[in-house]
Amino acid sequence: MRLDAQLRGESALIERIARRTRDLPSLAPVTIVEGIGDDTAVLQVGNQTLLWTADMLIEGVHFRLDWIDARSLGWKSLAVNLSDIAAMGGEPIGALLSLALPPDHTADWLDELMTGFTECARAYRTPLLGGDTNRAERMVIDVSVLGVVSGRPMLRRGAQAGDVILVTGALGGSRAGLEALQAGKGGAVDLTPHFRPTPRLEVGSLARALGATAMMDLSDGLAADLPKLLRASNKGAIIRRTAIPVHDAALRWTQAHNLDPVAFALAGGEDYELLITAPPATIPTLLEQIPQQTGVPLSVIGEVIEARELWLESSEGQRESFAISGWDHFTV
Amino acid sequence: MRLDAQLRGESALIERIARRTRDLPSLAPVTIVEGIGDDTAVLQVGNQTLLWTADMLIEGVHFRLDWIDARSLGWKSLAVNLSDIAAMGGEPIGALLSLALPPDHTADWLDELMTGFTECARAYRTPLLGGDTNRAERMVIDVSVLGVVSGRPMLRRGAQAGDVILVTGALGGSRAGLEALQAGKGGAVDLTPHFRPTPRLEVGSLARALGATAMMDLSDGLAADLPKLLRASNKGAIIRRTAIPVHDAALRWTQAHNLDPVAFALAGGEDYELLITAPPATIPTLLEQIPQQTGVPLSVIGEVIEARELWLESSEGQRESFAISGWDHFTV
Repeated sequence: MRLDAQLRGESALIERIARRTRDLPSLAPVTIVEGIGDDTAVLQVGNQTLLWTADMLIEGVHFRLDWIDARSLGWKSLAVNLSDIAAMGGEPIGALLSLALPPDHTADWLDELMTGFTECARAYRTPLLGGDTNRAERMVIDVSVLGVVSGRPMLRRGAQAGDVILVTGALGGSRAGLEALQAGKGGAVDLTPHFRPTPRLEVGSLARALGATAMMDLSDGLAADLPKLLRASNKGAIIRRTAIPVHDAALRWTQAHNLDPVAFALAGGEDYELLITAPPATIPTLLEQIPQQTGVPLSVIGEVIEARELWLESSEGQRESFAISGWDHFTV
Repeated sequence: MRLDAQLRGESALIERIARRTRDLPSLAPVTIVEGIGDDTAVLQVGNQTLLWTADMLIEGVHFRLDWIDARSLGWKSLAVNLSDIAAMGGEPIGALLSLALPPDHTADWLDELMTGFTECARAYRTPLLGGDTNRAERMVIDVSVLGVVSGRPMLRRGAQAGDVILVTGALGGSRAGLEALQAGKGGAVDLTPHFRPTPRLEVGSLARALGATAMMDLSDGLAADLPKLLRASNKGAIIRRTAIPVHDAALRWTQAHNLDPVAFALAGGEDYELLITAPPATIPTLLEQIPQQTGVPLSVIGEVIEARELWLESSEGQRESFAISGWDHFTV
């Protein structure tokens, strides 16, 4: 979910109106723990905590059919939603798939799309429970996923001063793929991170169990997403420049184009890695258990501070306030 | 939900592939009671039965922005989903809203859209819990709704031979509005049924409590939808021509254009009335309580038979097999 991500002014409007509707009393025997504002909505149903999210992929906006193959697109449409479930420390229950399909798409193409969707559904045990199919001029794929979390969900607002900040995997890989495609050089880098992101479901629920305080998934890049977590937690942070794990594809691409790899990675969207905060005492266990049990690398990149400021620290210990391209203005 | 409604050949393909993914085991402490094939998916979570649906409205396919006003469109986008919840005998928990918006839409227009959405959300106590906003060339509005049902949900497959068939309200009103708009005569009939359908939530849960055996909402017209309920129940039906309640707007439009009003109403889409089957013993109570408690008219239109045949009976008792325009071919 990213109600706030794309339409700056208009999202404020939606938020304003949404506030009216989310305050409506529901007669249903269900408690709304979180509405708009986190990676998923959170609902308490009896003794179960449910997670609920939706993400829309639009042809010409989120993907181009001359770049991405149908099978990868099917995978990605589910994976980006599962990433939101992962960010809450939960596991998926099932998915709904709403499709708008241009008439020139063959049954073979749709079969490929569904093969990719099913591969992801199978890998992460997410049965398809329904949806909607329609004709349209432009393709739209909207997936909604329900999940469940044992115990407390990992909200964005849980970060505490002194917490360590971690990220899974490496950053900038998806952006490198996208820029290569935009430059007509799709063969220059590995396109897997861009086409087939890996939802970090195992990491998310393990980090929750091991004492993480806040989590979110990186869909707009660390530079845009970290401020959201900090705003929600009413905290600031210091990030160490040299600690940012840069994806191989991003290293290759920035080297070839004489770009700063860290700045590139920080402003890279669609990595779908997890951003995690956790108390210092839990860090040795997290750093040992997560790579060992899930095979996913985990990096310490900085720490949460009480002051509502955001600093990027160089290897020489110099601190610069964040003003990297792609960085959201950090207003608290 | 209407995975089967619009893409005949391709929906068969989706169904085939969906069968693979819905059979995947879920690790979550949730039982999937119904996946694809009814008005909503049905999930058992602890002692609660949840309902889950999504419906996508696409500019140029489901609506034209030079016909429908933003406020009505906002209402309708939620109402058509609530109608699916009503058809299961449930009540809504909340909604997610995914929007694709062309750049030429002003904040005022979006405000109007959200005003209509909120009016419907308020009328039917459905808090907005999240979603997604995006830029796109064509407008797409995808709404997902979660609901809950006390006791057993009203599936399509519950109809028994001897059951009485009922419909709420009157049919063909939405089609009359659409045809008037298509003919450039929007002022000729009342456009409310087309622009602002009323989800029959109160009727649905009352009919469930009073012993109904099967229900669905009429989104593609009785002629197309009744066969779906009968197929799911493995039954047939006799419908009485003179018993079909025809909406005033449809009467007016067909009179002016010399059309058969009943045939028009039977093939009219988007009425969002409920189709209900119930045992004969419950009918007096249903016919008394539902109009009295909800203000919604209820009409007996026929009965369920064991033979997998579908007959339309004239006032003279003559039976014709269904071959009305818009009728789905009834293959069992």
